[in-house]
Amino acid sequence: MSTGEVRFIGSVTDVDGDISVITIDEKYFRGLDKLDSYSEMDVLFWFHERDDVNHRNVLTVVPRRHGETEPRGVFASHSPSRPNPIGLTRVEIISVDGCRVTVRGFDAFEGSPIVDMKTVRAHKL
Amino acid sequence: MSTGEVRFIGSVTDVDGDISVITIDEKYFRGLDKLDSYSEMDVLFWFHERDDVNHRNVLTVVPRRHGETEPRGVFASHSPSRPNPIGLTRVEIISVDGCRVTVRGFDAFEGSPIVDMKTVRAHKL
Repeated sequence: MSTGEVRFIGSVTDVDGDISVITIDEKYFRGLDKLDSYSEMDVLFWFHERDDVNHRNVLTVVPRRHGETEPRGVFASHSPSRPNPIGLTRVEIISVDGCRVTVRGFDAFEGSPIVDMKTVRAHKL
Repeated sequence: MSTGEVRFIGSVTDVDGDISVITIDEKYFRGLDKLDSYSEMDVLFWFHERDDVNHRNVLTVVPRRHGETEPRGVFASHSPSRPNPIGLTRVEIISVDGCRVTVRGFDAFEGSPIVDMKTVRAHKL
């Protein structure tokens, strides 16, 4: 086995400053049960604009945004250009309204497909 | 776009107590550059034993291992049975020797395919 298939469960439907709305497909609605009792979650998303052979062949990067001048391996970075175009961000859960999950601190562009969400810890219960 | 393809970059080749060895395919070797200057990373891996229609259709779970008795949505859990069989664990980087990365605290079974690795913070530099 050398490949796997991910099925996108939703997408980023709105971004306003540091607040984003993730809309989950209705078929996954039950998977959101009790999500609103958590304060944080890790979101896996797809860098859909980097899902091509050139970006997926990138193995070293220079993270200039972080003041770096030397190359480093992609696995020692959060570069969106990497063998698997998956992003990972820990976000704050603001509210869950039906299939709409409003979060703070998500850095994915509007339109980015969502791969998975995993809660981190509870504080609201 | 409703699906994406992940290409496994390596696998878990040895597990001994809380120490695991991740062996990365040679073609991705350069991606490991400077990984050894970090102390922690997030590892994305594939729950290959749950990659079937039954496990991927699971939307609610009862996390009995964590003392729970009530069902909750999979996105409010770390259940390996979920729409996309991707696991996420933060591990300690012990050493990097060629394509072999030795880590502590990884809960993936031996043989699990690796999807991605993302360093968290430096402390060794």
